[in-house]
Amino acid sequence: MNLLLLEAADFLSPTRVRISGRRFRHALGVHRARAGDTLIVGALGGRTGTGVVDTLAADSLEMTVDLSGDPPAKIPLTVVLALPRPKVLSRVLGDLTTLGVERIVLLNAWRVERAYWSSPALAEGALREARIRGLEQARDTVLPELHIERFFQPFVHGGLAALVPHARRLVAHPGSPVPVPRGVGEPAVLAIGPEGGWIDRERESFRSEGFEEIGLGPRPLRVETAVTALIARMS
Amino acid sequence: MNLLLLEAADFLSPTRVRISGRRFRHALGVHRARAGDTLIVGALGGRTGTGVVDTLAADSLEMTVDLSGDPPAKIPLTVVLALPRPKVLSRVLGDLTTLGVERIVLLNAWRVERAYWSSPALAEGALREARIRGLEQARDTVLPELHIERFFQPFVHGGLAALVPHARRLVAHPGSPVPVPRGVGEPAVLAIGPEGGWIDRERESFRSEGFEEIGLGPRPLRVETAVTALIARMS
Repeated sequence: MNLLLLEAADFLSPTRVRISGRRFRHALGVHRARAGDTLIVGALGGRTGTGVVDTLAADSLEMTVDLSGDPPAKIPLTVVLALPRPKVLSRVLGDLTTLGVERIVLLNAWRVERAYWSSPALAEGALREARIRGLEQARDTVLPELHIERFFQPFVHGGLAALVPHARRLVAHPGSPVPVPRGVGEPAVLAIGPEGGWIDRERESFRSEGFEEIGLGPRPLRVETAVTALIARMS
Repeated sequence: MNLLLLEAADFLSPTRVRISGRRFRHALGVHRARAGDTLIVGALGGRTGTGVVDTLAADSLEMTVDLSGDPPAKIPLTVVLALPRPKVLSRVLGDLTTLGVERIVLLNAWRVERAYWSSPALAEGALREARIRGLEQARDTVLPELHIERFFQPFVHGGLAALVPHARRLVAHPGSPVPVPRGVGEPAVLAIGPEGGWIDRERESFRSEGFEEIGLGPRPLRVETAVTALIARMS
């Protein structure tokens, strides 16, 4: 936690907050906060700054905050990700958030196991928590948009264009000989397949919608590693 | 497991192998191997190819193998990594192996907690297992070298030059304004610090040994994410 994220309910006034629960325990246990200490804070969806600890109680602390900074800029990137295994999902959502992706779409695909869709990792609270932790890591305050799309064809052939009308379209496929383009500054959509890759019909759908197929070379990567490697190389 | 890695003890003859244990269970459970099926295999430290399943027993299978391919090329990169938390260590070692790094050095640093050095994750078997899984993921057969260095100063001011005499030297530090160089094709050393970064004295040591300080921008990343992002951007 590199930034203590404040939610609307924490504010006692525009410059005073009270926090409890996980963030309070973190401030105490990891930052060893005492009265008078300054912590890095940010308002969820808003500005960043500092908070000076005024009072410490048994289960909460109060701070006077000065929120005058801007969160780091987002990358103008929409990542369309075939729903990964539940164990991997929250880590990947956290990483995508930390890396500064603007928008995330979790999509069904042929090789996504049906059971993944009924995992508790897809509960609204879990999806939010994963992104919140990504923001805290990156000192960001703005949640990336998150869309859940259970139907591949209608999304790729319609929903996507409605969501992101103008963007360069890239689809990662293991073994593609076309290297990942570097320094993509324009708005882009990057589609990343499940373990084992997209099936031929899915690749055909992407191609027919103007996607360029790209690859990271001869070494297949785990999904969570591929996500970071692709974005790092593109941005 | 994208490649079934064969060890010397598996070979009954130069073209016949018998496997059991984890790899046997994986071949059966995940690949649903039957007699006559072809699997992608590689000899640890040697060539890659295919194996045709001849016989399946209750706890082992035998294959006839044809090993005529070469494993993917390594990146001429030595990663010097401040020893990460035990929970993260095996994942990072696996990723470094999958990404094709030639050599890994686990180094002590001021902000490495002393307890990390007595973790079971540092047992020889665990260190080997993590890299083996990285090879299986990448369809590689050649283990990256692994060095353990418990003393920062003697390593940075002597051991390193003995290990890697001629290489570009880079040290990642959160917040450095110098971007990661792209497309580094020459041999290089990349030093990556602990959570919280190197302390000033360590940065000074690196600088005095010709290291360029580089950074990934304003968003602090988790160590495992930073490792992949740095290597992907450099290579």
